[in-house]
Amino acid sequence: MTSRVNRRALLTAAPAAALPVALAAPALAQSNPEVRWRLTSSFPRSTDILFGTAEAVAKRVGELTEGKFRITAFPGGEIAPALSALDAVQSGSIECAHTASYYYIGKDPALAFFTAVPFGLNARQNTAWLRYGGGQELMNEMMRDYNAIAFPCGDTGAQMGGWFRREIRTVDDIKGLKFRITGLAGQVFQRLGATPSVVPASDIYSSLERGTIDAAEFVGPHDDEKLGFARVAPNYYAPGFWEPGARLHFIANQRAYDALPANYKAAIAVATAEADAEMVAKYDVANPLALRRLVASGAQLRFWSRPILEAAWRANNEVLDELAGKNERFKKILESHRRFRDDVYTWHRVSENSFDNFAFTASQTVR
Amino acid sequence: MTSRVNRRALLTAAPAAALPVALAAPALAQSNPEVRWRLTSSFPRSTDILFGTAEAVAKRVGELTEGKFRITAFPGGEIAPALSALDAVQSGSIECAHTASYYYIGKDPALAFFTAVPFGLNARQNTAWLRYGGGQELMNEMMRDYNAIAFPCGDTGAQMGGWFRREIRTVDDIKGLKFRITGLAGQVFQRLGATPSVVPASDIYSSLERGTIDAAEFVGPHDDEKLGFARVAPNYYAPGFWEPGARLHFIANQRAYDALPANYKAAIAVATAEADAEMVAKYDVANPLALRRLVASGAQLRFWSRPILEAAWRANNEVLDELAGKNERFKKILESHRRFRDDVYTWHRVSENSFDNFAFTASQTVR
Repeated sequence: MTSRVNRRALLTAAPAAALPVALAAPALAQSNPEVRWRLTSSFPRSTDILFGTAEAVAKRVGELTEGKFRITAFPGGEIAPALSALDAVQSGSIECAHTASYYYIGKDPALAFFTAVPFGLNARQNTAWLRYGGGQELMNEMMRDYNAIAFPCGDTGAQMGGWFRREIRTVDDIKGLKFRITGLAGQVFQRLGATPSVVPASDIYSSLERGTIDAAEFVGPHDDEKLGFARVAPNYYAPGFWEPGARLHFIANQRAYDALPANYKAAIAVATAEADAEMVAKYDVANPLALRRLVASGAQLRFWSRPILEAAWRANNEVLDELAGKNERFKKILESHRRFRDDVYTWHRVSENSFDNFAFTASQTVR
Repeated sequence: MTSRVNRRALLTAAPAAALPVALAAPALAQSNPEVRWRLTSSFPRSTDILFGTAEAVAKRVGELTEGKFRITAFPGGEIAPALSALDAVQSGSIECAHTASYYYIGKDPALAFFTAVPFGLNARQNTAWLRYGGGQELMNEMMRDYNAIAFPCGDTGAQMGGWFRREIRTVDDIKGLKFRITGLAGQVFQRLGATPSVVPASDIYSSLERGTIDAAEFVGPHDDEKLGFARVAPNYYAPGFWEPGARLHFIANQRAYDALPANYKAAIAVATAEADAEMVAKYDVANPLALRRLVASGAQLRFWSRPILEAAWRANNEVLDELAGKNERFKKILESHRRFRDDVYTWHRVSENSFDNFAFTASQTVR
C-alpha cells in the first residue's frame, strides 16, 4: 500500500526528537516497532474535555503497546493552525489530528454530516449511523481525497443555542441579528434574515460587549461558562438545534496508518472508540453543574418558540436540498442520513422519548 | 496480589486445550505471555447482539495482543448456568463472564443499580454515572466480595414495556395481572396488585398462549420479534420504564485479572469500552426495522397512561426507600444514583429533551 521511500519522506518530516528509533526497518516487518506520531488538535489546551480527548487517546495507545507506539497531542496552533488540521494530515507533515469535519465545509459542504447538520442526529443516533448505518464508510470515501482515514472520537451532546443580548420571541426578531455562528447553521440563519459571522472564541466577549455582534453560540454550559457571556448577553437559548450532537474525529494520514502493524491499528480503533464514548460522559457530569452556576450568575434560560423552530426546520431543508442539487456526493450522504434519521427518530420517540418525557419531569413533580 | 500457587490452581481449572503455553513463568515477568481465558455469557447464541458483544470483546483483545491473550466466549449454559455466571467467576472456575448484575439481586438488591432500576438512568446517563459519576467504583466495591472486577460492556437502550393479552388502561387493570417480570420491577408491580413471576424465555410464548400468564416483558423489538409474542399477546406497551437502559458488564476474576500484564489489562478496558458503545448502536439500527415489522404483523403499539406511570413512580420510590432502610450499601448507592439522576435529568430536559421533542415529531409533521 505504501512505498518505503514515501513513508520515509513522511516520517522524516517530523522533528528530530520525534523520529522513530527503528527507521531503517519497515514497521510491518517488526513485531512491535517504535513509532512516534504527532497529533494536532483543533482545540486549545483550556478546553479540558475537548483537548483532553486527544490526550486520552494518546495515553491509551501507549498503554496498549507498552509505550512502543507514542502519540503526542498538541493544542491547535502549536504545530498547525486550529482549523487547518486536515490539511496538515493530508500533506503528511503531521501524522494525525483531532478535529471536526465541519470545519472544512469550504472544501466540500458534505463534510458537515459527520460532525453535525441542523436538525440531524443526536449523539447516540450519530454513533449508530456512523458505526452501523454506513456513515463512517461515507466519511472515509471522502477522506480518501485527503489521503486520510477517520475514527469517531468524541461528541459534545446537544449543544446550547447560544447567548443573545435581547430576547428572541418571534421569527421577526431574528431579522438583522448579527450572530456569531459557523457552518451550515449560518446559512439557515441567513435565510431567516440574520447576518452570520465567524468570530474567534477569544474575541466573542468583547464583540458582544461592544455590540459588534448581537449574539454568539459556542458549545454548552461547561465550555461557555469560562467565557463569561452571561454578563454581556444574558439570554441563554436551548436547544442548539443546529448541533443536536457534534461529533469529532481522530483523522490519520493514510500512508502513516497503512504502515502500522495490525495491533497498532487495532489500538487506534479501540482507543478512539473508548474516548468517543467518554467525552459525552464527561460533559454529562460537568454540564449540569455549570448550568446551575450560570443561572445563579444571571443567565436567563430560555427556549426557542415552536414557530421559530418550524421556520428553521423549513429553512434547513431548503439549504440541504439546494446543496444536494449541486453536489452528487452531498445528495448521496443526505439520503443515507435522512433515511436513518426518520427510522431512528420513530423508534426513539416510542422508547427513549416516551420514557424521558415522563421521568425528566416526574423527578421534580411527583411526590 | 496473588500467589503463584493460587494462580496455577486457577489456570489449571481450564480444560487442557486452553492451558497457557508458558505456565511455568509468572505472567508479569514476561512481556507478552500466552494467556487463555474462558468467558461464560448469560445469553444464548441466538441473541446475536447480546451474545455477540462478548464475542466482539474476545476478538478485539486478540487483535490488540497479536493473539497472545485469547478469550473464548461460551453461551449461557455451556460451561456455567446462564444466571450463575457471577458464581463461576467468584470461584475462579471460569476467568470471566458477560452478564447483568441485576440477575444477582438475590445476593444483594444493591446489585440492581449497575444494570437498571425502575425510573433510573437512560443508556447515556448510565454511562456518565458509571464512568465519571462514581457508579463503577461503587460496583467494584461490591464486586470485591465476589473476588471480581467489572467493566461496563453494553446497553440495550430503553426497553419496551412488554406484551399484554388485554389492554391496560388504568391502574386497576394491573390488579391480579400475572406478569412475567424480574428483579426490583417485580416488586413495583406487586405493590400495584400484580403477581410477578419468572418464566424462562423459552416458555413465555406457550405460557401466554395457555393463559398461565397474562403478560410478559423481554427486551425490545429486535429480540422480542424472534419469540412471536404478537400472535398471543398483541398489546405492546412503551416504555419499559423499569429498564430505561439495561447495562451489562464484563466481569473478571480478580486474581486472574491481577496476574495480567498492564497492556493486557488495558486491552480489557478498551475492548469492553468499545463494545459498550457499540451494543446500543447495533440496537438503534435493528430496533426501528423490527418495530415496523412487528406492527405490520399485528402488534398494537400502546403507551402507558400518565396515572399508571405516576402510580409506578410512587411504588418504586417506596420499594427503593424500604430497601435502603434495611441495607446500608443499598442506601449509599441509591443516594449517589438519585443525586446524579436529578442533576442529569435537569440538564437533559433543557438540551436533549427539548431538541428531541421538537425534532422527533417535526420529521413527520413539518413540511
